[in-house]
Amino acid sequence: MTYIAGSYTTKFGELWERDLRSLGIEAIEGALKDANIELKDIDALYVANMAASRLSGQDHIGSLIASELGIDVPAYHIESACASGGVAVRLGHLDILSGESKNILVLGVEKMTDISNSGVTAALSGASDEEWEAFYGATFPSLYAMIAREHMRKFGTTREQLALCSVKNHAFGSKNPHAQFPFEITTEQVLDASPVADPLGLLDCSPISDGASAIVLSKEKKSDVKIISSAQAQDTISLHKRNDITELTATVKAANKAFHSAGLNRNNIDIVELHDCFSIAEILAYEDLGFAKKGEGGKLIESGKTGPGGSLPVNTSGGLKACGHPVGATGVKQIAELASQLSGSAGARQISKNLKYGLAHNVGGSGGTAVVHILAKVG
Amino acid sequence: MTYIAGSYTTKFGELWERDLRSLGIEAIEGALKDANIELKDIDALYVANMAASRLSGQDHIGSLIASELGIDVPAYHIESACASGGVAVRLGHLDILSGESKNILVLGVEKMTDISNSGVTAALSGASDEEWEAFYGATFPSLYAMIAREHMRKFGTTREQLALCSVKNHAFGSKNPHAQFPFEITTEQVLDASPVADPLGLLDCSPISDGASAIVLSKEKKSDVKIISSAQAQDTISLHKRNDITELTATVKAANKAFHSAGLNRNNIDIVELHDCFSIAEILAYEDLGFAKKGEGGKLIESGKTGPGGSLPVNTSGGLKACGHPVGATGVKQIAELASQLSGSAGARQISKNLKYGLAHNVGGSGGTAVVHILAKVG
Repeated sequence: MTYIAGSYTTKFGELWERDLRSLGIEAIEGALKDANIELKDIDALYVANMAASRLSGQDHIGSLIASELGIDVPAYHIESACASGGVAVRLGHLDILSGESKNILVLGVEKMTDISNSGVTAALSGASDEEWEAFYGATFPSLYAMIAREHMRKFGTTREQLALCSVKNHAFGSKNPHAQFPFEITTEQVLDASPVADPLGLLDCSPISDGASAIVLSKEKKSDVKIISSAQAQDTISLHKRNDITELTATVKAANKAFHSAGLNRNNIDIVELHDCFSIAEILAYEDLGFAKKGEGGKLIESGKTGPGGSLPVNTSGGLKACGHPVGATGVKQIAELASQLSGSAGARQISKNLKYGLAHNVGGSGGTAVVHILAKVG
Repeated sequence: MTYIAGSYTTKFGELWERDLRSLGIEAIEGALKDANIELKDIDALYVANMAASRLSGQDHIGSLIASELGIDVPAYHIESACASGGVAVRLGHLDILSGESKNILVLGVEKMTDISNSGVTAALSGASDEEWEAFYGATFPSLYAMIAREHMRKFGTTREQLALCSVKNHAFGSKNPHAQFPFEITTEQVLDASPVADPLGLLDCSPISDGASAIVLSKEKKSDVKIISSAQAQDTISLHKRNDITELTATVKAANKAFHSAGLNRNNIDIVELHDCFSIAEILAYEDLGFAKKGEGGKLIESGKTGPGGSLPVNTSGGLKACGHPVGATGVKQIAELASQLSGSAGARQISKNLKYGLAHNVGGSGGTAVVHILAKVG
């Protein structure tokens, strides 16, 4: 059994005075303190990071962070594009299950602002198929814009429904002091924002962010929150190889495995952190995770059920859109947010004290990788 | 229990007509055939790769290879610089132990020749401390040259002893059809080669290589070769933080853990594949793995014990020097070579039919990471 013994997330944002090391160490020290576990009791370190190789010229990130901490236990660098964090949590969980480790640190960290915007866009395109997508100029906003257009054509999803996802995530994010954009926005602002890749505008896109998040996984019951299922699935890395681009099949498969393994139904879930890299991604996730029928994700966001006061709050952290998206950190932050909410320690953004099951959903690229975790509060 | 069900290594070399995908797929198809396991029975894929991000603009390598294979099971990209392969084998082994998977593919792959030599040198320097080593111009040959100089000063290790490591590895490599340099060289040739970073010359350095190696790990007994211990340790990523640069302390710690866990002594080991990225690295490894006392690695290579006909053959594949060093592939190839030797299927380079225990040693950077595996032939 794997418990989330503690967690800590740094401020997300354009943190010009911070580097990758200092963000990573702040998150780790915070998570250890929250877990009340000493560094000497840690058996392994998993570091999720996508792009330090291209953004900072630094590979071997596991060694870098272990070196900075002064520890000699195994340190691993896990990279699965924007799903790096969720995958690292999953591998840490398997490490606990294997009997190799009792206490594990999982760190997600990304430093994205010390390079030009075009440099970051190029680095992020490494998550797509370099030969058949990136090389021909397809950036991530353009890939998701194609998905959005097809979803609108096929199901009648509206521009306003897309905008509502961003509005809802900012509403939640406005209560999160760690969020990059801790303020509300209106539908009109989203619709009037500069176009990025039609129909997606600037406020449909998650930002470029610096930040880190760390959790401590423990075999022993050091908290009331545990991982009850972990599932991962893959799909083609490129969009053109798929029969239908209105579904992220990897999400469907990972979610089905996770629910089956947990023995739960969709309506058992009390709170969700999902991968809203673009507004359309949240609509897809509603459907692919099974919270809405295919094509009805737009109606779900309109219903208010996933927003403040709704019965299925989604992205109480603010999501990738409002909290920020330091790529390697995101999947870890999702687990940290759920652990805080389930344990009742989410402060001003605490949804309820009676949450039992939370689901985290992390996507790599345009759906080549999807990871789903279900957490439970235990008595 | 984890068995090495099968393995396959592609030709290593300057393979101008091959790309990362085709090398990876060739290795995987070969390993599945060798293991007599079908792709549909594989539960997870671990891909070791260091530098595709910078060398090919491609991240998300787990997704890329899964996509190419058309599989939807979890696919992971593991990066630990030149130790990526050994670390991926270790994580695959933990996955088996966790009970999550029955059959696992571990692929190591690197495509290094489609970029300038200076581009490759810069990419490789990402394994060191970018801020405190690479930024100031320290390349890997220069870091290991500093280690060599200090080892020579402190212990009287000679230039000729360094050269003998390369001569020995080429002698073994001359029998390996997959080797990048399948021919013998002389001590004179090593001593006369162009200087790279004094005292290391061109023939003291492992080459830039393309290649891939894959193994299948199985929970069930599908072969006579199993992993009996897996250990990993970390040290500072940068040399200047160490008290003594004549020892790779991560190797010492990983080796001690591996022997303790296996319940074996050094003299139980029949065959070794170790990390000879530079000739001095082989001398260090002799000492740090415990096959020679500190400072006496030079004497061990002189004795002939680790060469053809010796009682402790080291690097029968040709090592990194003669077989080649496609970075992500190396740690997997080491395990593949030991599995072939232990199972008696190494063909022209088969050392003996009576090998029982083999040790693999894989290093990341200048010793920031070290991984040691011990394999055993079972009845």
